[in-house]
Amino acid sequence: RIMRPDDANIAGNVHGGTILKMIEEAGAIISTRHCNSQAGEPCVAALARVERTDFLSPMCIGEVANVSAEITYTSRHSVEVQVNVMSENILTGAKKLTNKATLWYVPLSLKNVNKVLEVPPIQYTRKEQEDEGKKRYEEQKLDRLETKQRNGDVIFPIINPELHTVGYSQSSLIHLVGPSDCTLLGFVHGGVTMKLMDEVAGIVAARHCKTNIVTASVDAINFHEKIKKGCVITISGRMTFTSNKSMEIEVFVDADPFVDEPRDRYRAVSAFFTYVSLSKEGKPLPVPQLLTETEDEKRRFEEGKGRYLQTKAKRQAQMQQAAQ
Amino acid sequence: RIMRPDDANIAGNVHGGTILKMIEEAGAIISTRHCNSQAGEPCVAALARVERTDFLSPMCIGEVANVSAEITYTSRHSVEVQVNVMSENILTGAKKLTNKATLWYVPLSLKNVNKVLEVPPIQYTRKEQEDEGKKRYEEQKLDRLETKQRNGDVIFPIINPELHTVGYSQSSLIHLVGPSDCTLLGFVHGGVTMKLMDEVAGIVAARHCKTNIVTASVDAINFHEKIKKGCVITISGRMTFTSNKSMEIEVFVDADPFVDEPRDRYRAVSAFFTYVSLSKEGKPLPVPQLLTETEDEKRRFEEGKGRYLQTKAKRQAQMQQAAQ
Amino acid sequence: RIMRPDDANIAGNVHGGTILKMIEEAGAIISTRHCNSQAGEPCVAALARVERTDFLSPMCIGEVANVSAEITYTSRHSVEVQVNVMSENILTGAKKLTNKATLWYVPLSLKNVNKVLEVPPIQYTRKEQEDEGKKRYEEQKLDRLETKQRNGDVIFPIINPELHTVGYSQSSLIHLVGPSDCTLLGFVHGGVTMKLMDEVAGIVAARHCKTNIVTASVDAINFHEKIKKGCVITISGRMTFTSNKSMEIEVFVDADPFVDEPRDRYRAVSAFFTYVSLSKEGKPLPVPQLLTETEDEKRRFEEGKGRYLQTKAKRQAQMQQAAQ
Repeated sequence: RIMRPDDANIAGNVHGGTILKMIEEAGAIISTRHCNSQAGEPCVAALARVERTDFLSPMCIGEVANVSAEITYTSRHSVEVQVNVMSENILTGAKKLTNKATLWYVPLSLKNVNKVLEVPPIQYTRKEQEDEGKKRYEEQKLDRLETKQRNGDVIFPIINPELHTVGYSQSSLIHLVGPSDCTLLGFVHGGVTMKLMDEVAGIVAARHCKTNIVTASVDAINFHEKIKKGCVITISGRMTFTSNKSMEIEVFVDADPFVDEPRDRYRAVSAFFTYVSLSKEGKPLPVPQLLTETEDEKRRFEEGKGRYLQTKAKRQAQMQQAAQ
Repeated sequence: RIMRPDDANIAGNVHGGTILKMIEEAGAIISTRHCNSQAGEPCVAALARVERTDFLSPMCIGEVANVSAEITYTSRHSVEVQVNVMSENILTGAKKLTNKATLWYVPLSLKNVNKVLEVPPIQYTRKEQEDEGKKRYEEQKLDRLETKQRNGDVIFPIINPELHTVGYSQSSLIHLVGPSDCTLLGFVHGGVTMKLMDEVAGIVAARHCKTNIVTASVDAINFHEKIKKGCVITISGRMTFTSNKSMEIEVFVDADPFVDEPRDRYRAVSAFFTYVSLSKEGKPLPVPQLLTETEDEKRRFEEGKGRYLQTKAKRQAQMQQAAQ
Repeated sequence: RIMRPDDANIAGNVHGGTILKMIEEAGAIISTRHCNSQAGEPCVAALARVERTDFLSPMCIGEVANVSAEITYTSRHSVEVQVNVMSENILTGAKKLTNKATLWYVPLSLKNVNKVLEVPPIQYTRKEQEDEGKKRYEEQKLDRLETKQRNGDVIFPIINPELHTVGYSQSSLIHLVGPSDCTLLGFVHGGVTMKLMDEVAGIVAARHCKTNIVTASVDAINFHEKIKKGCVITISGRMTFTSNKSMEIEVFVDADPFVDEPRDRYRAVSAFFTYVSLSKEGKPLPVPQLLTETEDEKRRFEEGKGRYLQTKAKRQAQMQQAAQ
């Protein structure tokens, strides 16, 4: 579809969150269709996980986003979908790869939302495809288990914070979950959640560096808990790490099922977003260094540095592999 | 209501689809109100057909759209509504007629969506009004029957198409039908469908001529099949004909009720849109000629030429009549 | 959240209605949460009244709106909420108070929408807080009773009105209430209604003075009647009074439950909006004087003058108090 002014920031760059939302919608459609392709209980595919994804080139207002999705692996209860987004300037005809993403879905019964159904198997053209898919499946399963145990952290407001400290740029946003945010099952679309997370992360990044910023990448996101229609969700973000030209922001989503359910507020999702600051010509700018004050902030900075160096090393390894 | 940036293209011209959506909403309101004006089963009016409509002058961001609707004929089971759209520049006070449209609705029972209810008759001030209405009613009934038999065509992607061929500009878009797209009965508003059709037709036109384009007219559209909440709809468009200064695009809407219904994908609507290319001063520009390759493309081009010449002849006859 | 192009007028000023909608959403969330904080029947807080509110400084596209809400008083069946809106320019870090508003909510049972539940009492830090709250509660209760008896006026279209008369600028807008406009109970959010009212008032003001206009204040609004999903609402506005630099516009909302309910059209809300006209530099401009023609128009003009002088006197008293 054509990118509209509301999809973009003031500089005309489409929000990463808008692109994530389109990716998730395409993934939900193809996996729901696949899971209903055999006779059996009708179901809706729910997003369980999005793998780490990079935004390769910015998209602008007036461009057309071409989204294509393909099922690349099925386990007994889950579907792996690969989604590609191309941006197309319809006036010049120029096309660019904007994003490649891998998503995992599980089919939930329309009659009983707590029942996970079986996934019809797909046919592989080569045996290696199935083996590689199985390897990816096992890896993500491990990572999902790990993050499930991670402790729930809370962000408190800071009075009169110093410029460039964590407290200075931290932000939060509340949203009342309405019917247009939800699937047929009455749960929030994963893409809607990711769009709100990107919005908060973008506000944190802009507050910190006071320039035009764009989403560079999003780390793997695990959706452990569904969010029901009528909930209030609080999306909070704080900066955890800065390199010379990038900022890492941690974003939490907490759901508050305050009506009609005997349940406390709970952590639904958390993820790391990486942003870069761009000049008017679209070149990356240096970013102000994050000032850490507490022990926790220093620890999170070091952890962020670890993730940054690991990603950098992986990318160099890939480039060397490609060069061979 | 006031036209917003998201209602318009980059040049500031309001999308034809936004106007069609407003027209349909006004028509649905007036005909639903009329059909519920007598004691009896409550009902919702569903769009059955839109007559051919011309976009007489472009509307811009910041202008106010004034929509007025009137019931002009009732048969036993259908209502004819005439809708006029005026654009008003609230700063200068200037008003222009943007669009005149004729729509047909049928009342469906709220309790049983497959039951068409009876329409309370309207009073005519002159006997001729009723006779003319009856003539229009018979004509559209015939045309509806005809298009119902028309064969379902499918658009396949083309690899590496040549510039200005049919394959080069053809486009498609998928949309998951959400609650805000639907009426009280849980079916897609006709106006929502038309807006999406116009969006695809606009992308086809822009890809072909790479300039600012606007909707000039829409041929009669028949809504044979309802589309239910939760469906995925695929809207596909391909160019069928070019005259010196206009492009005709055929648009198909296919619905895929992939959840909760034992039914295959089906063709819900199809229609022809005509676009023109505008210079920065708003003057029509010549358009590149469509290159037809296959026999089918050549046949469709000739059929499009037929429609173009017929419309041109009709318009000249009307102008001569007006001049007498 | 970040203000988008669709939230603002052509001059880039965010619509007062967008701000009112955010205020109401925050109020609905905090009061619904409070009313469900004790074991008992689940409920949704419905807006009963908004106190008079001033727009202190305009907000622009790209700024972040910070909305904070606090419960300041509870009676047996109602909650008073104070909401503050700050606009923040995230590039410069500058913050300004945009709006302060006081809202009253009542908790309606999720199982039976006609049942008003009891509100858990809040703790006051000082006895005076409770007494002042009680005084505000009694005052608003009186005012609510008064407006309930006010007679329903209707706006008729005028043919060929003179420039600057009441008939020249009066406007109306219809809207079909969809699912995304409604709460869990299936009734329109008060904030959605206020946004539409501001849109109509803005069109009236722009038609009258043909310049860039912004909302300066909104008088107390009482929500006597709920509006159900599927209704058609007609929002009508007419100018009642002009001072040298401000315009007062009266806005009515009429609901037409034309489907599924044996009930006539009824007046759901009415309110007075005050607008000012701004130059390109953001300075208030003189406005053309309203030409009153009928006796009713002259009477309404005098009543508007009364409200204007009363507000002016109150503001001067407050400023003197602040100066002491």
